[in-house]
Order: sequence, then C-alpha cells, then structure tokens
Amino acid sequence: MENYLHRANNILTRVRDLACISEETHCITRTFGSPAFVSGCRKVLSWMQEAGLEARIDNIGNVRGRWNCGQPGARTFVIGSHIDTVRNAGCFDGPLGVIIGLDLISRMQEEHVQLPFNIELIAFSDEEGVRFHTTYLGSNTVAGTFQPSLLDKTDNNGITLREAIKTIGGDPEKLQADAIPAEDWMGYFEIHIEQGPVLYEDKLPIAIVHSISGQQRARITFKGIPGHAGTVPMDRRHDALCGAAAFILAAEQYALQHKDELLATVGTLHIADPASNVIPGEVTITLDLRSSDKLILKKARRSLRDIGFRICSERHLTADWAIMQKSMPVECDTALSHLLAQAIVAAGYNVKNLHSGAGHDAVTIAAVAPVCMLFVRCYKGISHQPLENVEVNDIAAAVQVADHFIHHLTEVYQTR
Amino acid sequence: MENYLHRANNILTRVRDLACISEETHCITRTFGSPAFVSGCRKVLSWMQEAGLEARIDNIGNVRGRWNCGQPGARTFVIGSHIDTVRNAGCFDGPLGVIIGLDLISRMQEEHVQLPFNIELIAFSDEEGVRFHTTYLGSNTVAGTFQPSLLDKTDNNGITLREAIKTIGGDPEKLQADAIPAEDWMGYFEIHIEQGPVLYEDKLPIAIVHSISGQQRARITFKGIPGHAGTVPMDRRHDALCGAAAFILAAEQYALQHKDELLATVGTLHIADPASNVIPGEVTITLDLRSSDKLILKKARRSLRDIGFRICSERHLTADWAIMQKSMPVECDTALSHLLAQAIVAAGYNVKNLHSGAGHDAVTIAAVAPVCMLFVRCYKGISHQPLENVEVNDIAAAVQVADHFIHHLTEVYQTR
Repeated sequence: MENYLHRANNILTRVRDLACISEETHCITRTFGSPAFVSGCRKVLSWMQEAGLEARIDNIGNVRGRWNCGQPGARTFVIGSHIDTVRNAGCFDGPLGVIIGLDLISRMQEEHVQLPFNIELIAFSDEEGVRFHTTYLGSNTVAGTFQPSLLDKTDNNGITLREAIKTIGGDPEKLQADAIPAEDWMGYFEIHIEQGPVLYEDKLPIAIVHSISGQQRARITFKGIPGHAGTVPMDRRHDALCGAAAFILAAEQYALQHKDELLATVGTLHIADPASNVIPGEVTITLDLRSSDKLILKKARRSLRDIGFRICSERHLTADWAIMQKSMPVECDTALSHLLAQAIVAAGYNVKNLHSGAGHDAVTIAAVAPVCMLFVRCYKGISHQPLENVEVNDIAAAVQVADHFIHHLTEVYQTR
Repeated sequence: MENYLHRANNILTRVRDLACISEETHCITRTFGSPAFVSGCRKVLSWMQEAGLEARIDNIGNVRGRWNCGQPGARTFVIGSHIDTVRNAGCFDGPLGVIIGLDLISRMQEEHVQLPFNIELIAFSDEEGVRFHTTYLGSNTVAGTFQPSLLDKTDNNGITLREAIKTIGGDPEKLQADAIPAEDWMGYFEIHIEQGPVLYEDKLPIAIVHSISGQQRARITFKGIPGHAGTVPMDRRHDALCGAAAFILAAEQYALQHKDELLATVGTLHIADPASNVIPGEVTITLDLRSSDKLILKKARRSLRDIGFRICSERHLTADWAIMQKSMPVECDTALSHLLAQAIVAAGYNVKNLHSGAGHDAVTIAAVAPVCMLFVRCYKGISHQPLENVEVNDIAAAVQVADHFIHHLTEVYQTR
C-alpha cells in the first residue's frame, strides 16, 4: 500500500502542476485552443515522452502516446480522459485519468511487461465544450465520428473551429487521418472523478460505471420588444427576460417532478444590449437535459419545448429553439466491467456499480469500441469549481485497481 | 410654418450627423467617456461656437455654451439635455433637446435679441448611466450636487470614474468649480422626446411635463453553490439562476398588482463563470423601480427586498442587496410651466400635461432651480432602440413653442 501511496502522491503533484497552467491568474481555466491549453498539451506530451511512449499532438489537439507491442495484427487498447476544463474549474476533472494512465504505463515499462496488444494513452482536447458549445471534439476525432460541418461553428469572438485548429498547429482537413480504424480497436478504459456525492456518502473510494446518461443541449432565444423601463406600462410589455425566467422555473419544476429520471439545467443566460433601464428585448439561454433513459430524454425535450412555446404565446413573445448537441445513453461493456470488478476484489475493495449523470469521452468511444470506466470519489461530489478535491488514498486505490485491471486484461487477451 | 419646417429639417440633419458618431459600427452607442463620446462632444462644441456662444467642455465632459447678457447681477437660464446614449440607442433621446436649443439660440443671435438674463446651453455628459451604473453625472456637476465618493466607482473593465474623467481631459478634483452657484440660477428648460405612447395615441405633437417619476435602482446578487449539471440531484441544488428567475417573476407580479403607480424592470443579469453544463452559483441582476409617489416607491423597495430574501430562504441561497441610485419624484415649476402653456397656445396647439416615467437631467437641476420640460411625440412611444423616431412636423412644433416660450420668458423677466 505504501508504494501505491507514493505513486498517488506523485500523481497528485502532476495534477497540481497541470492546474497551474491556466488562462486566468486567479483560477483554473484551460478551454480548447487557448494559449494555456497549448501549454498544457506540451506539458502532457513531455510526460508521455518521459514515460517512453511515442508521443504526438494530433490535428484536433489530442495528446497521444503510443506503445506498440510489435506483434503483427495486434489491436489497440486505449486509456484516456481529457485535459480541457470549464471556466474556474477544479484540477481533477479530466487530468486525473490521464495522469493515472501515465503512471500505470510508466510502471509497466519499468517492469518490461510484454504486451499482447498495443496501448495508446490519450489526453482528449475537448470534452467540456466550453468554447464551441459542442463537446467531445477530441474523442470524436479518435473514434472517426467527427462531423466536418462543425468546422464552421464559431466561438463567442466569431472565430471558427477551423481557425482555432490552425492556431494550435493542426490541419482541419486531416482530422480523419487521426481516427483509430474501427478494426484496430480492442477497447477503452477511462478513470474519472465521480463528480457526484454517492461514493462520498457511501464511504467508498472507487466504483464501476455501468451506464452514462444521454444528453440533449438546446439554445433557446426568447424575443420580445425592448423598451424604456420608465415609460412602457407593465401590462403592455413584451419582456424577453420575464419569459426566460418563467421558462427556467418551468424547466426546474418539470425536472423536479421526474427527479429520479431527469436533470434539467439552465447554465447560461445572455441579454442582448443589456442596460438597467431598458426592458430586455432578446434573451438567449442554454438548456441541458440528462437521463439514463432515452425515451424520458426525448419526452422531456418535447414537453419543455411545448412549455416554452406556451409561455411565449401567453406573453406575446417568440422563441427560437436550436438543438446544439445530442448523445444517447451508453451502456458500458459487460466483459470489461467484469474484469474491472475482479480487479477491485483483488485490490481488496467492495464492488459498487454506479450510473454516471456526467458525460464522458467514453460516450463517444462507445460507438466504435467496448468501453469501461472507473469512478474515483471526490469531496462531497463537488466538481466544476475550485473546491473539487480527491484524497490521496483514493488515488492510491484507483492506481491499485488499474494495475490489477491491466494485468487481468493482459492475461485474458493472451488466453484468447 | 414653412420657416419652422426648414429649421426642423436642419435640426434633423444635425441629429443624424451626431448619431453617426458611435462606438459600434452597426448601431448608435455613445457611453460616457468613450472615444466616440469625446468626438460627439467636440462636434457639439463646434456647433456652439458657430452659434456665437462662448463654448467649452467642462471637467465632467458637459459641453457648455454661454451667452452673457452683460447686465450686472444677471442670473442664468439654462437650456439643456444630454448627448450620451444607451447601447444600440435611437438618435433622438437627448440630442434632440440640445440641438433644438442650439437652433433657438442661433435664431436669437441672428435677431440681435437683447437678453435680460444670461443663457447657458448645456449638453450633459451622462444621463443614461450605462458605463458606471449611476446617472446624471453631468447635471449633478452643474447643480453642485456631485458626490465625490462616486469617483471611485468602476466600470465593467475596472476603470474608475476618476480615471475615465482624466482620459477625456477633465480634472476630477475640479468638478466643484463647474457648478453654477445656487444664487446664479434663474431656471431650467429641457426639451425631450416623450419615450412613451401617450402623445402618439392622443395625436398631439407636444406636451408639458408636470412631474417626473422617482427612481430606485438596486443591484442584487443571488449566491448559491455551483455544481455539475449531470450529477447534482434536482432536489439538492442551490441554483442561483432559479432563485433570480423566481425573483424576476415576483417583481413583475408585484408591479402588475400596482400597475398604475409603479414600474419594475430587471434589465441586466450576469451569471458568474457561466457554462451550459454548470449549475449557476452566483447571479447578479439590476432592479429599476419607478413611481411618481415616493411612499409607493419606498414600500415597493421594502416589499421586494422581503420577497427576495424569502425566495433565498426557501431555496437555501443568500442575497446581497445594494442600492445603486435613488431619486425622489420631482414636480416641475408652476410659473415656468404656465409660461410654456402660454407658448403652446400662442403656437396654436392644445395644451396637454403629462407625467414622465423616464428620468431626465431636470430631476437633478430641480434641487437648485425651478425647472420645466417640453415633451415631443415619438413614434409609438418607442425609445432606447433604433426604431425610435420623431416626425419633422413635431420638431417644427417644438421649435415654434420654444421660440414663444423664450420670448414670453424675456418679457416676464423684464417686467419684474
């Protein structure tokens, strides 16, 4: 155990080193394509090279370290997570999985393990989707499911994804070449903090993820008529902000009525030409819906759309509703999850299976390969903010389980 | 009438010339202290000089043109309005009054009128308060009621008012010297668009303002706990945006219940570190309350404060409530308004008296001098946006009434 704690402490140091690379001096922010993002990628690249991997940064900004086993026809097992962050983030969401992966591979290299398959460690470039409001740019590229139409999407400064890719040294026309061919995939393993309170409340360090929520994100623009705050009578207003407020409360109410099956969040709200003495004429919000059941997700989207239009009709407003992102719920691979359970038992922990309400790169990879995920407990389930924290003992537990998992995987693969 | 139409067309040309000077290429925006604001001031300064006035820009950026009558002990009659704008403004709100004043004075100079008092034409620098969220910086300076503590207020970029004043060439320590001494004031006259629908609906070109609403502006910050949109259960959230939405609807409802006496507007809303997949942890809004009755205004502020804290208590949020601005309701001067009524009759129009829900520089000046105001009809009452429009015939009516008014004022003053 002492050895695992030592490794966990080294992992923690690297997590904090990476967190120091930020767009903002007072907090952690590394969004896709920023100068801090590029510095972060280079730091991870150097670590992969130190670990003895053939490492490179691909065209979408993924940092990829490869260990080829040299056997003809060998397939590739990918270990991955992401290194982009939300604004004012914690330091574990994403980087922890990449840095544990690095440690795992370093140890195997030191022990001169003979692999029966290739391993690729990937630090995905865009899981959070903060800049272009579309997630999984990195893992979609690796899975070969990247939609070229996304290249024309713009960030809040009007910069296209195509331009952003060029800025970080990538070639937007060559993304397809960065995909791992479907026939080469053996499987995918991701370690990630839970970002929820279950492990903290149940006093468990780690758990297996059995499924991941589907998501739908919509951008809704409420349009009314701007006007002077001192002259337009209350009963003659077409106040877009009041309409948006009514919708926000209705969405909250709807999700509370389906609270074991659905989450609904309005995370952004933008008023066009805001001033304290002007009645808002146009308000744009984002709506994030999540469920492990695709029918509930679909029904929620339709119901909330109807509710939104009814509010607009009552208030003499109009609404534009645009779907920004959709992902179906994902089931993790039974065989890989079984190996993970064996590893947890071998490491001396209780096996716990969890559903993930947060999306992960595993969602995208599941379209082309069997996936499995290990969750690590985080303090009170707090994530996406500076209070996000993981105990070093829990990192040690994850390292121990990951060691056993890769060992079991190697054995199973050799006997096939 | 043909002559008045000719003058009105020249006024319209100047209104449009000034509107071309903007911070933004696609719309009209001239906020206090911006480069476009400075260019606008210089343009008005050159017009005042052409009109034969002793003109200067004072320390707070007011453009001031003086016509001294040369008589010992003569007091000063001020004609004024403002030339700053909201974002994405119309072109008449403010500039129309200044430019009609210019025309009026030019005509009197051409006719070699012998004045029994001094006239000062003032283009006030900050009536809208967009940049520093505090209005009447210009007229407070002229009235001698400027609060020096305001110099430390910052704009959204952290620039203090003190720094902004220096940037436009003013000396923040010398604002007091720009006040017109209380004993020198004779009165104040402001021409302004109505910014409401009454004249348009009643088919009248102009009206006398008998009173102006009091205002209270507050900044309210709702604080909850940020969290991951996919992992925090609906019934365990401390969502600051949902709290703000509940307050916005409650304020609307309260004002609707008092709709003949009160207006309530939430015009701005800012989420700290917004992202579509993050539960908002902190949301700041502004609340603008207006009433012609100071007791109703006070009661509304207290009631809404209580409602806000009750919402926070129910939702396990906290709230910070800061008053940004207060102004009491103002009664216009009976004697000056009576002269204005005589001028309207002499010009052949019906006399209409209106209350103003919008605040004006006259509110500040009323603390030190008798004030009167003339409203000009605008298209459907629309203001603070590009559709704001005034017919040339209505400008001609205002010019005609202003001519008569100054003529009557000169006569009354001479007979005293």
